[in-house]
Amino acid sequence: MTAMRHALLAFAVAATIAVPAIAADGAQPPKRKSAQEIIDAAPASAWRSLDPANTLYMELPSGRVVIELAPGFAPEHVANIKAMAKGGFWDGLTIYRSQDNFVVQFGDPDGEEAGKAKPYPAGTRTHLPAEFTRSDKGVRFDRLPDVDGWAPQVGFADGMPAARDPKTGKLWMAHCYGVLGAGRNSAPDSSIGAELYVVIGQAPRALDHQLTVVGRVVKGMELLSVTPRGPAPMGFYEKPEQRAPIVSIKLASEVPEAQRTPLQLLRTDSQAFIDATEARRNRVDDFYTQPAGHIDLCNVSLPVRPAP
Amino acid sequence: MTAMRHALLAFAVAATIAVPAIAADGAQPPKRKSAQEIIDAAPASAWRSLDPANTLYMELPSGRVVIELAPGFAPEHVANIKAMAKGGFWDGLTIYRSQDNFVVQFGDPDGEEAGKAKPYPAGTRTHLPAEFTRSDKGVRFDRLPDVDGWAPQVGFADGMPAARDPKTGKLWMAHCYGVLGAGRNSAPDSSIGAELYVVIGQAPRALDHQLTVVGRVVKGMELLSVTPRGPAPMGFYEKPEQRAPIVSIKLASEVPEAQRTPLQLLRTDSQAFIDATEARRNRVDDFYTQPAGHIDLCNVSLPVRPAP
Repeated sequence: MTAMRHALLAFAVAATIAVPAIAADGAQPPKRKSAQEIIDAAPASAWRSLDPANTLYMELPSGRVVIELAPGFAPEHVANIKAMAKGGFWDGLTIYRSQDNFVVQFGDPDGEEAGKAKPYPAGTRTHLPAEFTRSDKGVRFDRLPDVDGWAPQVGFADGMPAARDPKTGKLWMAHCYGVLGAGRNSAPDSSIGAELYVVIGQAPRALDHQLTVVGRVVKGMELLSVTPRGPAPMGFYEKPEQRAPIVSIKLASEVPEAQRTPLQLLRTDSQAFIDATEARRNRVDDFYTQPAGHIDLCNVSLPVRPAP
Repeated sequence: MTAMRHALLAFAVAATIAVPAIAADGAQPPKRKSAQEIIDAAPASAWRSLDPANTLYMELPSGRVVIELAPGFAPEHVANIKAMAKGGFWDGLTIYRSQDNFVVQFGDPDGEEAGKAKPYPAGTRTHLPAEFTRSDKGVRFDRLPDVDGWAPQVGFADGMPAARDPKTGKLWMAHCYGVLGAGRNSAPDSSIGAELYVVIGQAPRALDHQLTVVGRVVKGMELLSVTPRGPAPMGFYEKPEQRAPIVSIKLASEVPEAQRTPLQLLRTDSQAFIDATEARRNRVDDFYTQPAGHIDLCNVSLPVRPAP
């Protein structure tokens, strides 16, 4: 690989963390560890396994998108999504909207037209409460020390990017890239998890705690983010044949074990995660010479790996 | 259009600004103006025309990407890019890297291999100084009041998203979605504007003032953002045939007038821009009931329209 290519590789990979700068024998100080080095060296206990009962497989013609659900944040919506997945609701439905620097959205494009709407599977509830926030009581919140313009505190809960207001005791998921939310009408309690969107651009944090967020994409995001964009203003395809087909959405636990995608995620309370985040927050290496001293919630990498 | 679809339209469009709430005759207060309404009502003087001498047309098989260059921020790189465009340097070259939630990158994938590298056009300088920041003296900085974790001040200069440190008197472009920068090696002065990248995900602000930023995409971003992603870790395509072809990159002023794309951009010092940004900062309508009270630099919309 050429020097430019290698350096441009450095461009995205090598965040570092400081290690002691003075070696006992006066030799050159050891190189700072990069975020990737820290992640690679993390002990087994720093990783948690994705729970198949809490995982969706969205099969597109181009491959599988793996989604971790967030029942702690949206228990009723997640239960309803599981019921719909078990009933094959999205099988044969479509991605009917793709708006650049905003969202892709999928479900039943005819969902509100009597006579055309696909029937919901048995067990689907057709009305749910809004689940915009949850109580922070008893919830482990792995807080980031960094300032955030949108919320008093930011960090991670249940492995999800989240924000918290200690004054109200409320916690909610942040609309970071890759997060999955439930489309609704104007009424706060008008989503049921049948229409879903995924963030494909700059985090629209103004949506935080105003929609029910239900999970995040942990693998296969690159299959969604390239969905051809629909026309302005909103990215809804004008012609039905433009819609991108969904082969199926299934719960991983309903898929034969041999066909699953076993993944592990770095625990957000692990020392490796804390250290890797710091390595990115204050990245110094051959390419980056000025540590930023800050990281935004939605810039924090949430590492995923195939289960060993 | 169905109710859900209409509401989901509201999901992305209708940011509002407060207007006086008491009507003289006791009638219901007028509806708040949305950001789009404010933009639509802006006077002609609130718009500036894109300068063809400062605009690149990147022709892809799928259509034209229009890029406004930022000579105020990177005069030497921009001059060099213009020389290369005039010489047809990128014609027939490729997008050779596409990394999800990060960048697409293009130029000569063989650029550092003697014997394979495409010769630079006459007038191309093969060494330039780093242009990571500029002096803020005499530069109109349209400041946002919002806090930013990466810089003491954020706002707009020359219509570009930017950040500023009043202590050092430095100003630099921010790596927002759609911004165009110059790829380099480890040496700060190793970019010449031949290898270029565009941000296609969550703004990687940690790159600010560490690379030379040269402009931003004002139209056609949706053509770049769907570029199929290359493999981990960096998104460089492994096989040459995977690279996405660039038909040409030309200066708009070198293109016959009848073939140009005349655009106007809303001035960032206009009342309409200030009001539209406030309408998004504190959006309240049928769908959004909780004004955020904050907007991030890279969430601020920079409106573009066809020249009337």
